[in-house]
Amino acid sequence: VGQWPRADHRIADLGLAVAYLSEDQFFPGWTILVLKRHATELFQLEPDERARLIEAVASVARGLADAFEAVKMNYELLGNQIPHIHWHIVPRLGSDPAPRAPAWVVQHAPRPLAAAELEARLGRIRECLRA
Amino acid sequence: VGQWPRADHRIADLGLAVAYLSEDQFFPGWTILVLKRHATELFQLEPDERARLIEAVASVARGLADAFEAVKMNYELLGNQIPHIHWHIVPRLGSDPAPRAPAWVVQHAPRPLAAAELEARLGRIRECLRA
Repeated sequence: VGQWPRADHRIADLGLAVAYLSEDQFFPGWTILVLKRHATELFQLEPDERARLIEAVASVARGLADAFEAVKMNYELLGNQIPHIHWHIVPRLGSDPAPRAPAWVVQHAPRPLAAAELEARLGRIRECLRA
Repeated sequence: VGQWPRADHRIADLGLAVAYLSEDQFFPGWTILVLKRHATELFQLEPDERARLIEAVASVARGLADAFEAVKMNYELLGNQIPHIHWHIVPRLGSDPAPRAPAWVVQHAPRPLAAAELEARLGRIRECLRA
């Protein structure tokens, strides 16, 4: 999937998928988990792939929940713009501006991270993934 | 999870989860798959439960894609309002009013089904689930 997500936002390789921090960090920790092989729908995968993929999703979600002390995690596989399996894994924090709503409805200016912030955040998430 | 989703909108029992048609059918086929036992996050499940749950999600999604000739399926586990594992499984059709956007951002008046429409839709989905 080329230039998106950004290579310098790569968090970790999860085997059959790769996790990247979203460039827009308005929701702190918003992560995208991209399947390495091309498929558009869950039902196009083999059962074993689905099992390994949901293990990767759960593992990333647990790491993010720890890293950001999330109140709730959101897990979304949409593909309306890019029909390639990728998950949006979004920690919802105590400071969330709309805790009862899907993140998508919260209009906001994108919040990219400066280089030092980005490195610190990637490092913190990687630590929590290893724990 | 009590009165929600509505018992008369029940589609099928998938073993560890139950599928219900959403009361609001503005997006035709919007389905909610509710885990029977209580848990709030994917990473609270055992790996075997996660595997069986994602099999149920994929099975319902395949049935809905067939029943509604979906262009794309959306799969979402949020729990921001009801922190109990339930999936929104949403067929996105050729007639979609905002095909590139998450369904949540599409403001609309709720579209409940009349009794005969409801029975026809439940029947059609059950047929596709069995196929």
